[in-house]
Amino acid sequence: MPPLNRCLPALRRIRLANATFERSIARQTPRLPALPAYALLPQRRWQHAATASASQETSNEDEAGQPTPSKQIKYTSDSYPDLKRDSRFKQLDEADVKHFKEILGSSGSLIDGVTQDAQDDLEGYNADWMRKYRGQARLVLKPTTKEQVSGIMKYCNEKMIAVNPQGGNTGLVGGSVPVFDEVVINLGKMNKIRSFDEVSGVLVADAGVILEEADSYLAERGYIFPLDLGAKGTCQLGGNVATNAGGLRFLRYGSLHGNVLGVEAVLPDGRIFNDLFTLPKNNTGFDLKQLFIGAEGTIGIITGISVHCPQRSPAVNVAYFGLDSYEKTQQAFREAKKKLGEILSAFEMMDGAAQKLYAKANGAKLPLEGEYPFYCLVETSGSNGEHDEAKLNDFLEHVMGEEIVADGVVAQDETQVQSLWACREGISESSQHFGGVYKYDLSIPLPELYDLVPATRQRMEDEGLLDAEDDAKPVMDVVGYGHMGDQNLHLNVVMRRYDKKVEAALEPWVYEWVRERQGSISAEHGLGLAKRNYVGYSRDEEMIKLMRQIKQLYDPNGIMNPYKYVSGG
Amino acid sequence: MPPLNRCLPALRRIRLANATFERSIARQTPRLPALPAYALLPQRRWQHAATASASQETSNEDEAGQPTPSKQIKYTSDSYPDLKRDSRFKQLDEADVKHFKEILGSSGSLIDGVTQDAQDDLEGYNADWMRKYRGQARLVLKPTTKEQVSGIMKYCNEKMIAVNPQGGNTGLVGGSVPVFDEVVINLGKMNKIRSFDEVSGVLVADAGVILEEADSYLAERGYIFPLDLGAKGTCQLGGNVATNAGGLRFLRYGSLHGNVLGVEAVLPDGRIFNDLFTLPKNNTGFDLKQLFIGAEGTIGIITGISVHCPQRSPAVNVAYFGLDSYEKTQQAFREAKKKLGEILSAFEMMDGAAQKLYAKANGAKLPLEGEYPFYCLVETSGSNGEHDEAKLNDFLEHVMGEEIVADGVVAQDETQVQSLWACREGISESSQHFGGVYKYDLSIPLPELYDLVPATRQRMEDEGLLDAEDDAKPVMDVVGYGHMGDQNLHLNVVMRRYDKKVEAALEPWVYEWVRERQGSISAEHGLGLAKRNYVGYSRDEEMIKLMRQIKQLYDPNGIMNPYKYVSGG
Repeated sequence: MPPLNRCLPALRRIRLANATFERSIARQTPRLPALPAYALLPQRRWQHAATASASQETSNEDEAGQPTPSKQIKYTSDSYPDLKRDSRFKQLDEADVKHFKEILGSSGSLIDGVTQDAQDDLEGYNADWMRKYRGQARLVLKPTTKEQVSGIMKYCNEKMIAVNPQGGNTGLVGGSVPVFDEVVINLGKMNKIRSFDEVSGVLVADAGVILEEADSYLAERGYIFPLDLGAKGTCQLGGNVATNAGGLRFLRYGSLHGNVLGVEAVLPDGRIFNDLFTLPKNNTGFDLKQLFIGAEGTIGIITGISVHCPQRSPAVNVAYFGLDSYEKTQQAFREAKKKLGEILSAFEMMDGAAQKLYAKANGAKLPLEGEYPFYCLVETSGSNGEHDEAKLNDFLEHVMGEEIVADGVVAQDETQVQSLWACREGISESSQHFGGVYKYDLSIPLPELYDLVPATRQRMEDEGLLDAEDDAKPVMDVVGYGHMGDQNLHLNVVMRRYDKKVEAALEPWVYEWVRERQGSISAEHGLGLAKRNYVGYSRDEEMIKLMRQIKQLYDPNGIMNPYKYVSGG
Repeated sequence: MPPLNRCLPALRRIRLANATFERSIARQTPRLPALPAYALLPQRRWQHAATASASQETSNEDEAGQPTPSKQIKYTSDSYPDLKRDSRFKQLDEADVKHFKEILGSSGSLIDGVTQDAQDDLEGYNADWMRKYRGQARLVLKPTTKEQVSGIMKYCNEKMIAVNPQGGNTGLVGGSVPVFDEVVINLGKMNKIRSFDEVSGVLVADAGVILEEADSYLAERGYIFPLDLGAKGTCQLGGNVATNAGGLRFLRYGSLHGNVLGVEAVLPDGRIFNDLFTLPKNNTGFDLKQLFIGAEGTIGIITGISVHCPQRSPAVNVAYFGLDSYEKTQQAFREAKKKLGEILSAFEMMDGAAQKLYAKANGAKLPLEGEYPFYCLVETSGSNGEHDEAKLNDFLEHVMGEEIVADGVVAQDETQVQSLWACREGISESSQHFGGVYKYDLSIPLPELYDLVPATRQRMEDEGLLDAEDDAKPVMDVVGYGHMGDQNLHLNVVMRRYDKKVEAALEPWVYEWVRERQGSISAEHGLGLAKRNYVGYSRDEEMIKLMRQIKQLYDPNGIMNPYKYVSGG
């Protein structure tokens, strides 16, 4: 860029870019609903899973490379032949179903595939949205009270019936669907907001309340849920807490370990863990609820939560930049922290490949005219629009003037805010649009965070597995994006079809790479089934032993969400 | 106040008040050092404990009402005759001391009261600063590495030697000093900052680093420790984490459960709990470090921590108000949240009695000319001074104009900031200036939070225990103050001398009062020895049972900080 640019007011260039973007939006079919686009992705996700596209079908090959029947995802037990059903677990019979029916009474409901054929009804509870995992549950229970959950658990514990707690089933690691015939306990019918205090901002809600519904409820009252993520339209608060979900507001509001004030859960033996405290401070003994935050349903079923919700910021601004290098992206982040201070609410990074993929999968036009190797999305949220604009302008003047960013747009209205966020939030779905995706969710120190992406691409090329054009190669692309402000990279290996050779080349190689940099192999997605054998890459033996002690203490029969989490070798 | 006042610009009145305050400060002996006054309180605290005043001495009566020898605080075992030394614990002998000397080598050190007389040297480790608790340890160990701590614990576990982990010994519930002859393991010599990342703001430090030193280190680098409290000049990071300290920045930065990223600890059997992670997100299994946050040294000794530190706000403003009622104080809080939004960093409440007590104990003049039943201190911290001032002025105009506050001052410089904070932070020490104090640290829902103070006063009066002037009565005053923004009340019963009749009238009455309002009997001070028998007022039986299971799991021999925490009846 010519030095002349330093004299050009940054804002004039920004406005120019906006005008271009507005025209480009106008040309597109209006595909954005009134709600933020990313809020609706999960629903679309599930449609994808239920009505498989041709490319997805062919991606489901059995061991011999034969496509499995249409609409059916391969059973997890077939994909992971090393997994064997634990023979200690009881096989369900008619008496069990009868007993559960009695517990549920008229308020709850169940899907009975034990005494009748309910294959189709069960499918949505057995299969995950990525079409990677498929269990063989024959019974889904939908309790409406914690007492019902307690009755179910007590019975299961006595009879050695394995269970799979399930929220919105939007997980990415196979933790939310059964592996074999575990009973699915779905929390979807426990979906009431129990109370909200408009002075303290404390929300008490059933575990099955959908995140987006909680957030809308709070929005009407001037508050915000301290967590936001792409699956918000489907995922449930209980599942969010059980998986310690991170997401888009983490940079500003921090971890659920800080925001969740109370947890109500049913223990494997039916006892109720009653810690639904609603005040910010409570130093009365061990903070045991913390164990349930991120336990992924392995020591109990969360039935209710209380959470401290911050005030909603009336002013929200979103800017989207193109940058010439990862080094410049880091610089932009440092400047955003400095210049935007307490109003910075998101700093997201997307690489050029991720943005091209998004545009290709959605037939969308990107906000900037030029192409850049890196993009970032910066969001501010504050209480005073004028002040925030002044801070943002100061930031923009600086990063444009110093040529830290090459080009940028600032959203001028809510529709543009949604369009810009869609460029970031649409990547996940776009990644699996063409046949499948291997997803990695990693914590890596900022300076090295992006290095993994070119390294992975190189590895795929070296192994002869990647080609952008050649359909004979299983890998189409390798893209990187993520919550840069949280040092959290999402690495997606975009597949034409799932291929065990690719998986073998990626794992444990990716985990080894992360371990060398003292990162985490699971930043926010959890362990589930996918990473059960890789915990050792982020935790030492002693820690894993201590974790298994906790599991043993709370669930001595091992009936809770078996085969997953820290159960691996 | 006349309606005319609505037309009077709030700021003119505020400036007037400031001028008065400035004159009043000028008249006083300059008693405020360059550092914030409250930062230096703990040192003064300890001086108090070491050089007991006449009134404090007479407050130490033995069972027969005889004053104990000068400079000596009553033994805890005498104050609590129901406590018996656990006979399973080994009595130290010469061989033990020799072994510990070998472990500590030349880098660590010990105070040996086993093979020689070291009574005076041991006193500061046996007695707490409130002069309420006094143990009988004959050995203090000061290791310098986690390996030394590990060696010590392994030996103690094998030999059944009870230990008392100790940080800065600034606790308020008798948790930081031994009860009988437990070996004190003092972390003071593990006092190095291990690393700091200037981009992410992550600090890794030894447990024995003093909070104020950590904060000063961070201040030089543009960051702030997410915790601040009166004892900052003496308390240590390890102790802060072990007690899940709350303090003055909680409203803004939240709980240590959210800010602490990693914990390194030595388990009772000498194993090292190695979870000193430095990135914000890690969902690789149970978040076990959370158990150590607030465990009060009962399941392990924290030797190192990593913590996410926010950026330091360059602009800090402090205002101090007089208000006519608690209802108006609540209104002021709601307005502060609304008008100050993301820059509100503290909202502290002090009642009139608390402020008078502070003035009396310190010979200080209060910032406002008039007397009010309530006062509050509001602090803002932000990245842009002009914006913050505009927000603050908007808030001031509103609360003055609407007569929510009756009068107020705004600090014009750092000295005034310190003076205003001293009015809040000085209450704790002032409360025990006249002979002693019964302190309660409670979480109570905001609307009822203050009700406990007049109720307690009434009870003291009804029992004939309180008189402001009559020295024959043990209770001089009942004052209430606290972190109103966190729904955290500090109730102090100001004593002329300790009196078991007062204690009997207060406990469990206070705890019953709090239980009825679903509050917590320990908001931020912890359980220690003081509340070991009262956990049941805030936790149900099932929860306490689960807590004891954790204790049993980690410390089957029960050697860690015995007689305290959840060990009570």
